[in-house]
Amino acid sequence: MPAAAATDLGRLWKLRPDTIYLNHGSFGPAPEPVLAAQRRWKAALDEQPMDFFTRLHEPAWRAARKHLAEWLGAAEDNLVFVENATHAMNVIADSFPLATGDEVLLNDHEYGAVIRIWRRACERAGAAPPVIAPLPRPFDDPEQVVEAVFAAVTPRTRLIVASHITSPTALTLPVEAICRRAAAAGIAVCIDGPHALAQLDLSLDALGCDYYAASCHKWLSAPFGSGFLYVAPHRQASVRVPQLSWGRLLPATPAAWFEEFIWSGTRDPSPYLAIPDAIELMRSVGLETFRQHARELASYARSRLIDRFQLPPLATRHDDWHVAMAHVPLPPGDARSLQQALWHKHRIEVPIVDWNGSRYVRVSCHLYNTREQIDVLVDALDQLLASEA
Amino acid sequence: MPAAAATDLGRLWKLRPDTIYLNHGSFGPAPEPVLAAQRRWKAALDEQPMDFFTRLHEPAWRAARKHLAEWLGAAEDNLVFVENATHAMNVIADSFPLATGDEVLLNDHEYGAVIRIWRRACERAGAAPPVIAPLPRPFDDPEQVVEAVFAAVTPRTRLIVASHITSPTALTLPVEAICRRAAAAGIAVCIDGPHALAQLDLSLDALGCDYYAASCHKWLSAPFGSGFLYVAPHRQASVRVPQLSWGRLLPATPAAWFEEFIWSGTRDPSPYLAIPDAIELMRSVGLETFRQHARELASYARSRLIDRFQLPPLATRHDDWHVAMAHVPLPPGDARSLQQALWHKHRIEVPIVDWNGSRYVRVSCHLYNTREQIDVLVDALDQLLASEA
Repeated sequence: MPAAAATDLGRLWKLRPDTIYLNHGSFGPAPEPVLAAQRRWKAALDEQPMDFFTRLHEPAWRAARKHLAEWLGAAEDNLVFVENATHAMNVIADSFPLATGDEVLLNDHEYGAVIRIWRRACERAGAAPPVIAPLPRPFDDPEQVVEAVFAAVTPRTRLIVASHITSPTALTLPVEAICRRAAAAGIAVCIDGPHALAQLDLSLDALGCDYYAASCHKWLSAPFGSGFLYVAPHRQASVRVPQLSWGRLLPATPAAWFEEFIWSGTRDPSPYLAIPDAIELMRSVGLETFRQHARELASYARSRLIDRFQLPPLATRHDDWHVAMAHVPLPPGDARSLQQALWHKHRIEVPIVDWNGSRYVRVSCHLYNTREQIDVLVDALDQLLASEA
Repeated sequence: MPAAAATDLGRLWKLRPDTIYLNHGSFGPAPEPVLAAQRRWKAALDEQPMDFFTRLHEPAWRAARKHLAEWLGAAEDNLVFVENATHAMNVIADSFPLATGDEVLLNDHEYGAVIRIWRRACERAGAAPPVIAPLPRPFDDPEQVVEAVFAAVTPRTRLIVASHITSPTALTLPVEAICRRAAAAGIAVCIDGPHALAQLDLSLDALGCDYYAASCHKWLSAPFGSGFLYVAPHRQASVRVPQLSWGRLLPATPAAWFEEFIWSGTRDPSPYLAIPDAIELMRSVGLETFRQHARELASYARSRLIDRFQLPPLATRHDDWHVAMAHVPLPPGDARSLQQALWHKHRIEVPIVDWNGSRYVRVSCHLYNTREQIDVLVDALDQLLASEA
């Protein structure tokens, strides 16, 4: 894609002009047309809440879910909206049957809050503490990654929890192969996918996982507080909602598993209802247009940063393991103070990640990002790291 | 207050002009200045999410909580924001220690979703099913209400759950007396207070309850999805968050009980942050101004409806038992179809409640409501009930 076209699309995002925003991966945000769709739903809610909640809401919820489900390659009844992937993961952890001594297997690239969630669930059930499989360094052959996960499987392993794209390290895990091998071994799989939406094509019913947790406000750029929980049919009967209410408002008679999620008390559901607009916006841009722009820019960031700091990255090649996020090691030092200095001195927002005792920069590239911004980042890092020494 | 002044204040609400909205009690909504405050927070979030979440959010959360806590007569550290009273009640039900055979006592005016929540909590803990105390008919002397609650107490009663103002019947329960007597008997008390905010003066630390659950989007007219959970200090150590995340974002080190509630995953916290604006708006109106207007209008509605349908209400006098909601019995018939007909034929939104086998109308009166609207309601009900017969 020509740089000018990407820049035009980038103007759909109304980011604060004083900021170089290279952290779409952490939160989002949504572009203006998606926010406008959300505002229309919210206006309908605020001007006549009864009409909205008792007549418009459930059909709109179902229509938005159908739209998302089709995009994700899932039967609509396998999906519910939740605020974010964290909420989805809590539902799973509260629902998955664990007994004394059972093991849940994660790996050393998983998100800290997810490990916290499973630590508590295991403790509550009297299961063993979560097992953390170390993955290969560097990532080179996907088969080695699968082997590393299954090397930590024991006869007590009941569930494998794995990110589709890891949060601290931005690596795409071979979840299809993990699901296949787990199914053969009779082990359930829960995929944590907040970074995967829009970065990767998803086909959830075909994937063969038991659970999939995701946030739509990251790469899909839906409004804040829009996520989903996917549950394979054979697991649905055991789902336990953490927040019980009426389930459905009127008539209040939840029957299917997902109906408990339609009404969880009075709240603003406009983020969920604007998800179809986010999907259609990305479709009109073209997902491949987005990915090509993001991949090229992230590869550029990676090359420039490796060139500057000369440290070996966690994956041998960008294109095999990453999409829209470059992930590059930095010289040792304090991650938090470097991230703060990038913001306060250079107005650059980019996460500096402290992972397994080393320091990395994770550069997110969306349609509104440019090569010039990467160049400013490289110079700023250079300058700040020189002053650290 | 002169009617003109109330009408002027009523113009702060931008309700759909085709609607006679007599159901503020079910959901809200918020007036325009409060929605504007919410929009300012949301704009800051959408234009620079990192700055918002990692630098602005926690101080803003704490400042909003301090503001609300002062208004409620509570130490700030006894409060956390939650989406709604239902969420708060779920936290309490998931946290309160129950053992085999223990009893939780509710009464026959409690909200159906709350009974559902406690039925599940009791089942999970192996406790007895919730005990439902029948309250006197009619409500006349508060002491009789207290007696009716405690007549259902047994040596196994661990917790009394009672509304501050009941949802299906709009009655103010004598919660101060219930708390005093429960404390003497060593029984915990959980007050469900979504209707009490702004209708009643609250002084939570002095009240002596163990838990208080409320929604700020009802009578206080904060944005949708703004509520709080109050937990007395001696119960805080046992609070279990249903949605575990980092607790706090950066640094992620929750220490106090409430810190687990500050960061529960990416979501839009603008409803919480606009609560101070809702408090200040009601203060600038004058809470007594609001209450006097609401009480006069509700009394008027009650008189007219009793006069028309000649059925004895659940409370002997409006002013002793109700504030902003009139509650009047209607001749027998289907509640749901009558409510729908009021909307579809007369554009009146008012709940027709089916409670304990009888049919009632619950008329909410806020600053934007008028005597003329009540007159339209009485005529519409008259007409629809005549066509039912």
